[in-house]
Amino acid sequence: MSNNFAAIADRLKFNEQGLIPAIAQQHDSGEVLMMAWMNRDAVIETLSTGRVCYFSRSRGKLWRKGESSGQEQHLVDFRYDCDQDTVLVQVDQKGVACHTGRRNCFYLAVRDGAETIIAEPEVSVETLYGAKH
Amino acid sequence: MSNNFAAIADRLKFNEQGLIPAIAQQHDSGEVLMMAWMNRDAVIETLSTGRVCYFSRSRGKLWRKGESSGQEQHLVDFRYDCDQDTVLVQVDQKGVACHTGRRNCFYLAVRDGAETIIAEPEVSVETLYGAKH
Repeated sequence: MSNNFAAIADRLKFNEQGLIPAIAQQHDSGEVLMMAWMNRDAVIETLSTGRVCYFSRSRGKLWRKGESSGQEQHLVDFRYDCDQDTVLVQVDQKGVACHTGRRNCFYLAVRDGAETIIAEPEVSVETLYGAKH
Repeated sequence: MSNNFAAIADRLKFNEQGLIPAIAQQHDSGEVLMMAWMNRDAVIETLSTGRVCYFSRSRGKLWRKGESSGQEQHLVDFRYDCDQDTVLVQVDQKGVACHTGRRNCFYLAVRDGAETIIAEPEVSVETLYGAKH
């Protein structure tokens, strides 16, 4: 099966940094949770383990979603688009997806021409990451 | 109002090519339709006109979604994420979003380790773009 997953990774078009954008969507509600990036290893690990893994551009390494916060994403369906240059992972999100404690990252919206916060945190950052953060 | 939209564009973090990824989602069903890119002008035009406009990387110019195919996207809500580096446009998609004639672009999925087509075209490419394509 891991050979098969390598073949899937071969189908994807990674950019000049070796990355592909990945949209995470809650599988049942349709809520768009976040967008992050995967490299080839992250794609294969996600498909192999059923736990969504990204590549952290800031830390320069694989980012197993939830490894610090416990807010894991369990893979329900792995899809990609007509150009094979964007991934859509349909997931079951454990807890909240956003590092601010909000359910999803898209809580800034334009209302009457102005930036407006449309969702509040459901969990404190201290609860998510512990006192050291 | 256009000054306000410029202020929104100022809040967004465009990459080194001056682009930001934009996810289009059907506002009522939650279906993720496509992912494309916007530059600063595309953001301002989308907010000003209520018709979604992207930047075509292949053609190097603004791409008013539906200008050739008639499959316009009417803006319902313009959102962006905690890092201000990804846009989520909730839209009302007229017809199909994908240039293959499918409702959305994410019709390739991994099933039993293999690439599987999970949706068929609803409209022919000839109907969308005319005989010349």
